[in-house]
Amino acid sequence: MTALETIAGGAHPGTLYGIGVGPGDVRYVTLRAAGLIRSVDIVAFFAKCGREGNARRIVAPLLSGTQPELRLEYPVTDEIPSADPGYRRAIADFYRASAETLTAELQRGRSVGLLAEGDPFFYGSFMHMWRRLEQAFPIEVVPGVTGMSGCWTRANAPITWGDDVLTVMPGTLPEAQLVERLGIADACVIMKVGRNLAKVRRAIEAAGLIERAIYVERGTMSEERVIALREHVADAGPYFAMVLIPGQGRRL
Amino acid sequence: MTALETIAGGAHPGTLYGIGVGPGDVRYVTLRAAGLIRSVDIVAFFAKCGREGNARRIVAPLLSGTQPELRLEYPVTDEIPSADPGYRRAIADFYRASAETLTAELQRGRSVGLLAEGDPFFYGSFMHMWRRLEQAFPIEVVPGVTGMSGCWTRANAPITWGDDVLTVMPGTLPEAQLVERLGIADACVIMKVGRNLAKVRRAIEAAGLIERAIYVERGTMSEERVIALREHVADAGPYFAMVLIPGQGRRL
Ligand SMILES: C[S@@+](CC[C@H](N)C(=O)[O-])C[C@H]1O[C@@H](n2cnc3c(N)ncnc32)[C@H](O)[C@@H]1O
Ligand SMILES: C[S@@+](CC[C@H](N)C(=O)[O-])C[C@H]1O[C@@H](n2cnc3c(N)ncnc32)[C@H](O)[C@@H]1O
Repeated sequence: MTALETIAGGAHPGTLYGIGVGPGDVRYVTLRAAGLIRSVDIVAFFAKCGREGNARRIVAPLLSGTQPELRLEYPVTDEIPSADPGYRRAIADFYRASAETLTAELQRGRSVGLLAEGDPFFYGSFMHMWRRLEQAFPIEVVPGVTGMSGCWTRANAPITWGDDVLTVMPGTLPEAQLVERLGIADACVIMKVGRNLAKVRRAIEAAGLIERAIYVERGTMSEERVIALREHVADAGPYFAMVLIPGQGRRL
Repeated sequence: MTALETIAGGAHPGTLYGIGVGPGDVRYVTLRAAGLIRSVDIVAFFAKCGREGNARRIVAPLLSGTQPELRLEYPVTDEIPSADPGYRRAIADFYRASAETLTAELQRGRSVGLLAEGDPFFYGSFMHMWRRLEQAFPIEVVPGVTGMSGCWTRANAPITWGDDVLTVMPGTLPEAQLVERLGIADACVIMKVGRNLAKVRRAIEAAGLIERAIYVERGTMSEERVIALREHVADAGPYFAMVLIPGQGRRL
């Protein structure tokens, strides 16, 4: 199926924009993203039930209030463990339905800007739309400042020096794998810490890295929190939480 | 030494801004960076002898032409291998002298925006100024879109899916270390490929990953080039070159 074959009536299809909105502070939105947010026909975003939607909240100061918005609402919350096959099926169904919703708008010739936290191609839910739609419609992806860049900036911690190797891993990995990867890392970023915080902390202690680890919650957002991991006692953090272990490579 | 003690005469010291300018396309500059570039007293940048300066070239469309600029010129080019102790000494001397030049401006109460390619705290030369000046002057770091985000966007290649671990490493590492790290990587970014291209290519072949590797030169800049690494035969690339190995994690 080519882009044109998907069009009923022969109108030009709309373009799908995957718009990286950066780590949280609206000032870290790019010029391209800000321009598109103002000019697309529809601003679309994912949101959890009853919530504003993280990416939408980040760009709220840029929205006119009169522009059409399309809310794509997750059918499940964080409560079900993501390894659960029921959860995976529900999410896959949701992504399929969301892609169909976007298809309908694009076929009518409307441009859609789908907001993405941080950078769209870095652990982003936008990728699940992209892989379903990229054969059928013109897509432009706008890279964004990642959450980790926002976090190491606010932690005042350059992450990699000289020949440092950076390992970025999700806190969803099994504890033994976290320990193993940490053991050979120069610099490390652990994403998706949230409900995995206690496990991530144990792994970092086992790897002998607790003294170097920094916990960052809601980096660059209001209610930002930066604290040495060894001083942080909670067993879980919010969705926007990560742990940084800055590298110690060559200083010149 | 506190910030105030460094001031002769008692004027307020100027702020040093480390301004991430993104991967190359001026549209990927953030709102904060663009605002600062227009408002700081002095726009400073590193440049190689006889060249415009990479970060300055990226933001050239935003410069008024009348704003004072401070060019910090490297005493050496790429020609000397960076493991050479003479090279290291020359670079360290240069960074020390550059920090002194910035100190003089900041002490006079001038704000200085030091441009940094991509994100300042990610393998950035800005870090060598930051570590010398952060005790003495107010500093604000503005995170930027990294070169790698620009490159995987233009390669149309989401880099990490699901539980993928991302390894970012410099092509300056010894070949055996590259092979070892590649062997356990899910997704991989190899920076500083330039004169290390032949070695990087051999390591990727040895790790059995050549079919997945994408070479990106000057991502998001004019003269950008994206090509399968297996089809790229040169032994060296320009300064702005990296290799991407996208992850193959869970698609939902
Ligand atoms: C599904 S990933 C999306 C990453 C995003 N595409 C990016 O480029 O940063 C979500 C995870 O990113 C991390 N994250 C993103 N922004 C963050 C912020 N401002 N503060 C803390 N963590 C953040 C958290 O670990 C969170 O669980
Ligand atoms: C000293 S590091 C600086 C990285 C920068 N601070 C960043 O956040 O991307 C320079 C290396 O970054 C990579 N790089 C940065 N921007 C790039 C681009 N637009 N295209 C290709 N490679 C790039 C190249 O591998 C280059 O050797």
